[in-house]
This record gives sequence, structure tokens and C-alpha cells, in this order.
Amino acid sequence: MNVRSLIEARFGLESETGASVDDNGTLGAILTRRSQRDFKPDAVPEDLLNTLLAAAFSAPSKSDLQQACVIRVADRDKQRRIAEMKASTRWAAEVPALLVWCGDSRRIRRLAEWRGHAFANDHLDAFMNAAVDAGICMQTFIVAAESVGLGCCPVSEIRDHIEPLSDELELPPHVFPVAGLAVGWPRGETGLSMRLPMTVTVHENRYDDTRLIDEVSAYDRRREASSPTPLESQRLIEEFGVANDYGWSENRTRQYSKPARVDFGRYLRKQGFKLE
Amino acid sequence: MNVRSLIEARFGLESETGASVDDNGTLGAILTRRSQRDFKPDAVPEDLLNTLLAAAFSAPSKSDLQQACVIRVADRDKQRRIAEMKASTRWAAEVPALLVWCGDSRRIRRLAEWRGHAFANDHLDAFMNAAVDAGICMQTFIVAAESVGLGCCPVSEIRDHIEPLSDELELPPHVFPVAGLAVGWPRGETGLSMRLPMTVTVHENRYDDTRLIDEVSAYDRRREASSPTPLESQRLIEEFGVANDYGWSENRTRQYSKPARVDFGRYLRKQGFKLE
Repeated sequence: MNVRSLIEARFGLESETGASVDDNGTLGAILTRRSQRDFKPDAVPEDLLNTLLAAAFSAPSKSDLQQACVIRVADRDKQRRIAEMKASTRWAAEVPALLVWCGDSRRIRRLAEWRGHAFANDHLDAFMNAAVDAGICMQTFIVAAESVGLGCCPVSEIRDHIEPLSDELELPPHVFPVAGLAVGWPRGETGLSMRLPMTVTVHENRYDDTRLIDEVSAYDRRREASSPTPLESQRLIEEFGVANDYGWSENRTRQYSKPARVDFGRYLRKQGFKLE
Repeated sequence: MNVRSLIEARFGLESETGASVDDNGTLGAILTRRSQRDFKPDAVPEDLLNTLLAAAFSAPSKSDLQQACVIRVADRDKQRRIAEMKASTRWAAEVPALLVWCGDSRRIRRLAEWRGHAFANDHLDAFMNAAVDAGICMQTFIVAAESVGLGCCPVSEIRDHIEPLSDELELPPHVFPVAGLAVGWPRGETGLSMRLPMTVTVHENRYDDTRLIDEVSAYDRRREASSPTPLESQRLIEEFGVANDYGWSENRTRQYSKPARVDFGRYLRKQGFKLE
């Protein structure tokens, strides 16, 4: 079966894309992927988890520098303390496996000292490389895990209480959390997250967003038609009231009208990073 | 067939990991993946490329904010100019498809203005989220592309000449390149990049790198045994001479003893980012 209908479902748009491409399993799994927060209590077998971690670290890495690491939170009390730092992450207190993906700029610095070389890249580019390496490993883990039927949910909110989280994981200087990841066997189906049309995210030769507002306006309507937001679930009603034309863009711009994690830069500098 | 032997090859270590897990195609492809720079001249069919882009943007995104975009460099002259900015990226001048993955914090800011909301997240955390979103989309593209037999090579070196690159792609404020990606049909086999042992990259409950030097020392020897570096290929010989115990750690610490992309932070600030 070709993947066209999967692409139509993902973007909520009629499309010719994928008409000539057959699903090979991997493509279909990626195109239909969804985040999963509701798991059966069953454990993820140890050998399977280690296999998925091996897959994760097979991902490409900037200059082969391999600046990612992961903390597996195996201690249930620790997991509960991390999950309960924030009301909205409490659901992760009992998930079968909780991983925390980190950028790791400590390793190369220790190795530089060992090998007797100066470390001359203590700047923003090097920080970004470590963060992106961690994200790439996490996503590789996710694709591998979903291919065997596991469900995953990345949890960036664990950065909301960055100091206690960092203390729980005993992160030394130059190591920092990028995202948590909940992993387990899905209990049921969850909804597909409809994506912005590729007219917005894919540019040819040059960046061009002249039609952004029209495109997002139509996207908002498609998303709401497919998965309506109940009036009482609108974000920050007490401040902004109920919007008639509520949708993805209203939701996300309301979200970013409130500062979140303004202390992350301070934390990183405390962890030893210069970020010039 | 179980994936144990693939994991042994990836890490260059005897291992029991994967003994109980069968390859489902996706796992095997990820565990054996390699970067590819040598392509047949054949084009990547348009519908296939668009399908892979649809897969890429199906990836999870921080808070569903979808802060990634990609510039497809379809203009061959532009591709050549970008590739030729640096001697070491010249090989990308003629690759069948060249993509540039970008973090995009402009979209949400434009939408905030449209929706009449303040934008209160102009800080380091928000910058990192956009960068990681871009990396995650790129890696999802890579896994999808490799599943249909294409080869890929991420090219972060395109950031070495960030201003002319940004000008070529006409990147507006709050959009920035994370990595280029060369895509095409592989001409031949390339080597597998051996990975650090998971004793170094996977931690349980708390970060612990007490055995780092021993582990990396053994890793250096395994890598060199499997894929020796010719003496004349050692990095920066004119400065550091020929090392008898040359290996991954010596190579990478020599690399980072020279500053690279120190202007990236300045570029981002010029692009409008506050990075506190």
C-alpha cells in the first residue's frame, strides 16, 4: 500500500504526495507515530531496552564527537521525585521506563585534559552541538522503540525544575538535560498530532513565509475540525477569555506569552558553559 | 535473526545485548547505519523526497510548537556556492539533493503578533528547543531515507561560513541553520562508525564517569584495530607531531584544540536572539 493516505491523515490535507511510494514498515510507522502517555504496567525487558539504547547511540553525531548521554532512572523513588516536581508531569511517576537525555560536553573536556590539549570551543556552537546530539539520539531511540510496538513520550517539562532535576541525576559541570522520555507498552490508541502543512515548513532555495498567516489560519481550522478543543479547555481563559476562533496558533501563542524556563541559561552558566 | 551481532559490530565489543531481540528491519537498519558521501548521479524522485519530508515533520516537537523548517537547495548554482564555501564540503557541490535544516523561532513570533499576544520566551531555553526540533526532524528524515535505500550525510560544517550561507538561503531574523544534509543513492559501501561503549554513554540513576579514561583508552584501541589511521592522516601533525597511541580521543581533542565557529553566537544575536 502506498503511503499517500497516511500523509493525508498526518497533515489533514488532500495530497498527491506518497502516491508512488510503498510503505516499507518504517515509513508507515514514522508517518503514523504519536506520543503515548498511558502505559500498561508491564516492564520493558532489559535486553530490549539495552538494544534500543544501542540503536539510539548508532545515530549520527556532530563530527563524531558523541556528545550525548542518557540517564536511565531505574530507582522508582527517584523517578517519582522527578515526575512529581511538576503537576503536569505526575503521570510519569509510574511509567515503565524513564530516560533523561543529556547534552554532554564534559567528556570531550576531560579527554582534552587527559590528552594534553587545550579546549578551545567553549562557546554557543559547541553547546548547541551537544544539545542536538542528545535530541538526535532520543529520536533514534523513539523510532526504534516504536518499531517494536513500544510507545514513547518526550517530556521537556522536566527542565522546569532544572536545579533539583540536575541534583537528582548528579549531573556534573558541562552536562545538562535536554528531555525526559517515558517508555512503555501502550494501553490504548492516542490521537495523531496534525502537522503544519509543508508549504510552511519546507522552503525551496530561500526562506519564504509570505503566506504564513493564511496557511496557519487554514491549519487551525483543519485541526479544530478534526479534533475540537472544548471551550473550557482553552488555555489561560482567566486571562484571555474564550476565543471563538481558538486553534493551534492561539493555544501556542498563549503558551509562549508566559515565560517558561527563564533560568535555563543561568543554570547552564552555573554548569560551567560560556555561551558567547 | 537477532540483532546481537549487529550491536557487537557497532560497538566493537562482544556483548549479550540483543540476543533476545529479532531484527524487524528498522532496528537492523539503524544499528548498521553509516554516513554516505559518495552518490550515484541519479536524482531522488520528487515524490519520494516529499514523502521523506512528510516523515521528517511527523517527528515529535517540543510542546507541539513545530519550530523547525528545511530549505531544499534545488538551484544547482546555489548548491555549488554553498558547498564551495569550504574546501572540506566541496564534495557536496553535486550531490543529488541538499537540504538545510533550520531552527525556526520566527514563525511563533509572527503568530504571537498576529494573535495579539506578547512573546515572553526570548531566552536560551527557547533557542535550544528550536535547534533540537530541527535535529530531530533531520534524523527522522535520515531514518526514513535510509529505509528506502538512500544514503545521507549530515554536514554541520556548512555553519563555518554562517553569514554567506544565511544570505544564500535568505534566512530572516530568528531562523538559523543547524545542519546541511546530503541525500542520494549510495555508490558503494562506507565504513561503520564504531561507537563509544554504553558504559560511557548510558548511566543508571546518576551520572558517573569515574571509569571514563580507561573506557575511552580501550575504545581508542578497538577503533584503531578495526580501522587504523594512517600515520600521515593524523590531525594537525605540523603542530602536534605523530602520536604512537593515536586514536579517536586524540583526533577529537586535537580538533577541539582549535576554535571553530566562534562567530555563531554573534550571528544568532544578529538574527535577533537574546540568549540569556
